[in-house]
Amino acid sequence: MEKTIDLGFTKLDMERKERTGFAEVVFCEGKADSHLIEIFRTLLKKNGTVLGTRASPLQAQKIKEAFHSASVEYDSVSRILTADSAENAGCKTKRTGLIAVCSAGTADIPVAEEAARTAEYFGANVERFFDVGVAGLHRLLEKIEGIRKANAVIAVAGMEGALPSVLGGLVSVPVICVPTSVGYGASFGGISALLSMLNSCANGISVVNIDNGYGAGYIACQINQLAEGKR
Amino acid sequence: MEKTIDLGFTKLDMERKERTGFAEVVFCEGKADSHLIEIFRTLLKKNGTVLGTRASPLQAQKIKEAFHSASVEYDSVSRILTADSAENAGCKTKRTGLIAVCSAGTADIPVAEEAARTAEYFGANVERFFDVGVAGLHRLLEKIEGIRKANAVIAVAGMEGALPSVLGGLVSVPVICVPTSVGYGASFGGISALLSMLNSCANGISVVNIDNGYGAGYIACQINQLAEGKR
Amino acid sequence: MEKTIDLGFTKLDMERKERTGFAEVVFCEGKADSHLIEIFRTLLKKNGTVLGTRASPLQAQKIKEAFHSASVEYDSVSRILTADSAENAGCKTKRTGLIAVCSAGTADIPVAEEAARTAEYFGANVERFFDVGVAGLHRLLEKIEGIRKANAVIAVAGMEGALPSVLGGLVSVPVICVPTSVGYGASFGGISALLSMLNSCANGISVVNIDNGYGAGYIACQINQLAEGKR
Amino acid sequence: MEKTIDLGFTKLDMERKERTGFAEVVFCEGKADSHLIEIFRTLLKKNGTVLGTRASPLQAQKIKEAFHSASVEYDSVSRILTADSAENAGCKTKRTGLIAVCSAGTADIPVAEEAARTAEYFGANVERFFDVGVAGLHRLLEKIEGIRKANAVIAVAGMEGALPSVLGGLVSVPVICVPTSVGYGASFGGISALLSMLNSCANGISVVNIDNGYGAGYIACQINQLAEGKR
Amino acid sequence: MEKTIDLGFTKLDMERKERTGFAEVVFCEGKADSHLIEIFRTLLKKNGTVLGTRASPLQAQKIKEAFHSASVEYDSVSRILTADSAENAGCKTKRTGLIAVCSAGTADIPVAEEAARTAEYFGANVERFFDVGVAGLHRLLEKIEGIRKANAVIAVAGMEGALPSVLGGLVSVPVICVPTSVGYGASFGGISALLSMLNSCANGISVVNIDNGYGAGYIACQINQLAEGKR
Amino acid sequence: MEKTIDLGFTKLDMERKERTGFAEVVFCEGKADSHLIEIFRTLLKKNGTVLGTRASPLQAQKIKEAFHSASVEYDSVSRILTADSAENAGCKTKRTGLIAVCSAGTADIPVAEEAARTAEYFGANVERFFDVGVAGLHRLLEKIEGIRKANAVIAVAGMEGALPSVLGGLVSVPVICVPTSVGYGASFGGISALLSMLNSCANGISVVNIDNGYGAGYIACQINQLAEGKR
Amino acid sequence: MEKTIDLGFTKLDMERKERTGFAEVVFCEGKADSHLIEIFRTLLKKNGTVLGTRASPLQAQKIKEAFHSASVEYDSVSRILTADSAENAGCKTKRTGLIAVCSAGTADIPVAEEAARTAEYFGANVERFFDVGVAGLHRLLEKIEGIRKANAVIAVAGMEGALPSVLGGLVSVPVICVPTSVGYGASFGGISALLSMLNSCANGISVVNIDNGYGAGYIACQINQLAEGKR
Amino acid sequence: MEKTIDLGFTKLDMERKERTGFAEVVFCEGKADSHLIEIFRTLLKKNGTVLGTRASPLQAQKIKEAFHSASVEYDSVSRILTADSAENAGCKTKRTGLIAVCSAGTADIPVAEEAARTAEYFGANVERFFDVGVAGLHRLLEKIEGIRKANAVIAVAGMEGALPSVLGGLVSVPVICVPTSVGYGASFGGISALLSMLNSCANGISVVNIDNGYGAGYIACQINQLAEGKR
Repeated sequence: MEKTIDLGFTKLDMERKERTGFAEVVFCEGKADSHLIEIFRTLLKKNGTVLGTRASPLQAQKIKEAFHSASVEYDSVSRILTADSAENAGCKTKRTGLIAVCSAGTADIPVAEEAARTAEYFGANVERFFDVGVAGLHRLLEKIEGIRKANAVIAVAGMEGALPSVLGGLVSVPVICVPTSVGYGASFGGISALLSMLNSCANGISVVNIDNGYGAGYIACQINQLAEGKR
Repeated sequence: MEKTIDLGFTKLDMERKERTGFAEVVFCEGKADSHLIEIFRTLLKKNGTVLGTRASPLQAQKIKEAFHSASVEYDSVSRILTADSAENAGCKTKRTGLIAVCSAGTADIPVAEEAARTAEYFGANVERFFDVGVAGLHRLLEKIEGIRKANAVIAVAGMEGALPSVLGGLVSVPVICVPTSVGYGASFGGISALLSMLNSCANGISVVNIDNGYGAGYIACQINQLAEGKR
Repeated sequence: MEKTIDLGFTKLDMERKERTGFAEVVFCEGKADSHLIEIFRTLLKKNGTVLGTRASPLQAQKIKEAFHSASVEYDSVSRILTADSAENAGCKTKRTGLIAVCSAGTADIPVAEEAARTAEYFGANVERFFDVGVAGLHRLLEKIEGIRKANAVIAVAGMEGALPSVLGGLVSVPVICVPTSVGYGASFGGISALLSMLNSCANGISVVNIDNGYGAGYIACQINQLAEGKR
Repeated sequence: MEKTIDLGFTKLDMERKERTGFAEVVFCEGKADSHLIEIFRTLLKKNGTVLGTRASPLQAQKIKEAFHSASVEYDSVSRILTADSAENAGCKTKRTGLIAVCSAGTADIPVAEEAARTAEYFGANVERFFDVGVAGLHRLLEKIEGIRKANAVIAVAGMEGALPSVLGGLVSVPVICVPTSVGYGASFGGISALLSMLNSCANGISVVNIDNGYGAGYIACQINQLAEGKR
Repeated sequence: MEKTIDLGFTKLDMERKERTGFAEVVFCEGKADSHLIEIFRTLLKKNGTVLGTRASPLQAQKIKEAFHSASVEYDSVSRILTADSAENAGCKTKRTGLIAVCSAGTADIPVAEEAARTAEYFGANVERFFDVGVAGLHRLLEKIEGIRKANAVIAVAGMEGALPSVLGGLVSVPVICVPTSVGYGASFGGISALLSMLNSCANGISVVNIDNGYGAGYIACQINQLAEGKR
Repeated sequence: MEKTIDLGFTKLDMERKERTGFAEVVFCEGKADSHLIEIFRTLLKKNGTVLGTRASPLQAQKIKEAFHSASVEYDSVSRILTADSAENAGCKTKRTGLIAVCSAGTADIPVAEEAARTAEYFGANVERFFDVGVAGLHRLLEKIEGIRKANAVIAVAGMEGALPSVLGGLVSVPVICVPTSVGYGASFGGISALLSMLNSCANGISVVNIDNGYGAGYIACQINQLAEGKR
Repeated sequence: MEKTIDLGFTKLDMERKERTGFAEVVFCEGKADSHLIEIFRTLLKKNGTVLGTRASPLQAQKIKEAFHSASVEYDSVSRILTADSAENAGCKTKRTGLIAVCSAGTADIPVAEEAARTAEYFGANVERFFDVGVAGLHRLLEKIEGIRKANAVIAVAGMEGALPSVLGGLVSVPVICVPTSVGYGASFGGISALLSMLNSCANGISVVNIDNGYGAGYIACQINQLAEGKR
Repeated sequence: MEKTIDLGFTKLDMERKERTGFAEVVFCEGKADSHLIEIFRTLLKKNGTVLGTRASPLQAQKIKEAFHSASVEYDSVSRILTADSAENAGCKTKRTGLIAVCSAGTADIPVAEEAARTAEYFGANVERFFDVGVAGLHRLLEKIEGIRKANAVIAVAGMEGALPSVLGGLVSVPVICVPTSVGYGASFGGISALLSMLNSCANGISVVNIDNGYGAGYIACQINQLAEGKR
């Protein structure tokens, strides 16, 4: 199998699954419809399945129209778009392990959902704990036993991003943090939450880019697979 | 009584107590010894008592030497330096009300202590709750009933500055927050903590400058006096 | 009574009033109509009254349509939206004490009005002193006696944010400052005003997030209640 | 066993190992000698072993003098200081699994060594791959098979911080990145490397604070233990 | 020939080609249609050819309509707009030498294409190497021999901007880097890529403004001409 | 007379006085003693007088030793160092007009003094109004009549830099503002004051670099000369 | 005459002309039509003339419709809107002195024109020198004799903002600099030009806010009046 | 010959000259004496010559002592340290072509000298044009003919960094710009100059890191060699 498929405007990395364990994923935002369709076609043909992130409703519509025979699903909250070829659709990977996805506020849910659905796509069981921000601490404490069962925790928060510091002190597995651009004024589009997470005095805290739910879901999956002996 | 005493290098605001309820305070850092002594002399003579902040041990020594008859006290942790004339020393104001001063970590204590001693100087009872950061949540929860008794809460924290968001959800009085320059790397000398506090999703949170323990102590005193009907 | 009502997309904190003295408030901006209505319904049922901030005219319209029997009011300047159930409407809390809300310029009025109406909702008398910026100093000095009567002062200013430094030197109660995003060029969306307020050489100055009129109104209310012995 | 030991200036979290799997660690920088000794004494007595980070040579000397009977070790490159009580010294945990610690340049070694020794202290085997920055790509490619054997990879880099992007594309396990303050001019004390890592187009990349080798070592250990079924 | 032609709203520098080797170029973005047409008319008359950058499709349309007899070409990806008078169209400069234009990702192509077409307009042969980012290293390594043949290399990258550091270690000619505004969150509109490139530990790396494909193409041409003995 | 004197390490601009009305001035900070002496010798010989800024006490000593016959004066507060040749010393320019130099605080005096002495050196009468910051407004209002007599006002302030906004509303001549690096925490070495001044809502306000007392003194002199008909 | 006219939403400063020499000016951007009309009506009645800045074409239309009998003029480039009552229209102030307004590029003209028209409104003669940026130095040098005739120079530039440094070395009067938001990428909305101007090594350079043409025109007028003995 | 020599603490890239045309260079700052000596020994043995940058006087002394038989030279201004083995010393490369190194001010000379000596070490003729900043424009214009003879121009400037914009408009070869940390206040350690250079409206301008004279010298050499047909 070739390592790279060159579509002119892009070079698809066909060897990635072998090298890293996960096939190439498509960042849909800003891609022209014709390019997006060509990329999905190539990946569907080679891999039987495609994960697209940050897809607009219109892009989802275009992909659905282009691939009638495939099973195409779109979630408008997370903007996750998946396609499975007819052959692939019936034989989805069985999910294993457990990842806890926590969000501080309601407005953080789109990013949290992107993380959760990425993890599910890559084969992890996911439990969601939304709106457990620390200003109403009992909401988090009521749920902590459930969170502790996971192999990895994802903490999604905007504004002051304080959730990870509290969470980090209460669990024994890595907490992957996603600062969000939720907030106004001095939140500076997520910088405040990002800095909070980087400076957390709790242990076990690492951080991905602002609003990068996909990235956190990916890492949590890597950890979940290691924990489940699936490496 | 004159409104201003002009010492050439500085103009002392003698009317301030009348206008704002609190006499002029001396920011000692960077002041020449001769200037500092002259300021203390004038204020001691007019007011019978002086509060100096950010005083070095050497400055404290110089003031002690210059005013043998006065009662001069220096605390090396908070760098608070106070002087009372002989007449004034025996008749200190009786303290009223209660202010809770909380610090997230051990390294925040100098700033917390500056806040606490400022509040005490201006006539408030103060209770200290140090090292109650949120990464070990039980340390805070064990103390929360004591904190709830105060008329105002001061929260001092560096690094990610998450303490106020948790505190704000647990108390009913104003929380005056002091970000500290404690931390390294992306704490940027207190910016991370400052932004966290400004963006707190809890209510009742307001913020003063980085390391400004004095300012927080002053405001807490204003609130404490209002609460005690001492306006 | 349960501590949390879980609506799936959000967890309403029903215990907040008990813990903090004020019931949960709804930040309307960005919320879906269906979610907003469900939140208002739950809170109206439990508390008899709801305060919404940053509501769009369209959201106000939707709430009015959804709750015919309730008394719904919307102010398009402050974007404050309140609802009271039929039973609650006739028995509003009597207002006590006094809060002074000062704005530096005309363009700061929406934020100042948000602060004022929040304070009124939570039971404080409010007097407004708008357009008293320091470039025309006599406008402020003419009003200072009125401002001095308040238990707490709110200072709202954009651009260079100099109002609090002058105000802080003239009053004896806490000045809660709200930097606004009013300005252009090097005002950087409120950063200039924010930094001015944090660095004020006047005493008694604390700061909330840029454009956070609600937050300042809330804190001023806490202080006002303490001063009126209503804790 | 009590949850907290209150030493006045600090509250030691004795329950942390139970909650998070790892006992409390001491950040030595800036602590007074007397405080440091008291903390080490308490933790040695309760846990039999202590890990201190960012210790100066002088602090190491003081701890050695204070605890003659304990086994105290200090590494001047990483500034890691460990102490084991006489009883504990002979029965160290057997190391398991494998963590790869990579550094881009020679100047990044102190931070990389802090990560490596933290991981070793908490029971992981560690292999070091130093000075494998991407400007001389063959240095990294020659070593990649060895790196691929690890359960987790730590990537330490200053200046432009490009190492993680290349590494992330070549391995299947999480890459925990530590930006360092190595560089000059527009490296801004590590901000350039930090931003590079946060924006990496490779998958599996998460980031800790600038120069926070300890934090990366801790997380890699958590992952290593999960992978080895030691949770 | 006059040095400057003053059109009132602009002063065209007619001496530039003599001083710098390249005639004045038109930055089209934001220019009024009437101004743009007048500038093109003057330059076409004097120089026989015009290069416009950052032209909108509408501007291209206006220029085509205004100059029927000229040969006007527009590329919507790079937004490059060129016009040649009837006399000039048949006698284009023969291209010499070779410039390699590399882009890290698909989204960087518009900027890379601006660089490539600028270089071609000024007389260089150009080879494009698009989507050779370092997260799939083999894509770059497969092409490196082709890149090494160039007299100058242009490296265009957004997000973490790591491509130049790898490229710089593999070639012997100058690498002119163009950070792009491609990315989200902490990419800060190209700042992350810009800082990476400025801090590159590889040699031979210099940087132009974010998204300034034109500038890089210009410099590469200067070098190419020097290498081909065309100075 | 030659336009430039080339000393190898520097090129002295001998034509400057003719072009700009003021002779070249020496920024002493960081200059080697031997270079400083050579520059002073050349300028003394050509102009008969030299103004040096930011001179250390040691540099002043070296210049005094090197030019026994000249009249050398050093002010340790402003770090202004002047030298006049024997012939020149007796025939100083008569001062004209009036410049008001205002400082907000005591700590701003060194910068204010640099401005004042620069203006005096270039031939202006100067009146000093120090420590007239707006937190004690009466101090400024008591002096405003005196300030209004000047042809130009210099306002020197650190921290929140609010003085110019109040001054600008009270006078009819230009206010040249100097932000100072006085402050701590979020003053960011003068950025807060700089931004305040740039965003001032008062008219007639322009700004020079942080701590650039010399620059403000120079501009005020230009205005003073124009006002006195001395152009 | 009253000092302040209180329109409820704004307080008009009627004493300003007496205090500062220039009547209150209206910043139109963002003002509601009804408010704008009321402000113009009041000022027209009291002063006979009004200057409005940053007016939209629609606002200009509304003012024209509201004041048929007045002479209303609008310039769409500078967005300056002026109104003169019938009585006032025939007796405009005779212009005196000379101000030179220089712009670096064509895109800076709107800001330069705002400066120029403000200065003309307040009674100065103005000469415009547009598109004299330093990358084509001869364009500036050809005009320098004309510029030198002015009592004050305004330099308007975006991008790298280098014009003032060259200008400052060639003239003897103050150069008031206006950074503009013209540019892209690392120009950061005018920050680059602002910093250049603040750090200029030329003398006589002071700076106003980004895009603040009005402010520069005002100051230049103050200087022009002083120079013409019109104080 | 091996590609990499692994000294444990560092991996020397012995293949670099083959790949890039220039052998590995040693960044001395911060390296331990023992490490520095070992690196010099290895490179001297393999290459016969070594270039060290940012060497302290003490480091130079240590290298001189360690390699008696080699020819070691140190320049304290540029901090360049070179060593040639006895065999190599007599057969230095003949210099070719020409590079012009321009500095804006005297304080920029250390960085300019680093660029110049790097270029000379790598075989280029260099002419220095120091202190030709644009505030005294004639200094630059007097020298421009000499500068125009070079194959590449290096422009070194701090503060507002305006030199490249003027230079770029006057020459036809690439201008490699080095912003320096020279300046104070809002120069922010070189950021102001860096931004100016990135935003230059002149063509042919590219930029390296702040104070990176070495990097600019290296690139200029690459261009010079291409121009001299030495590739």
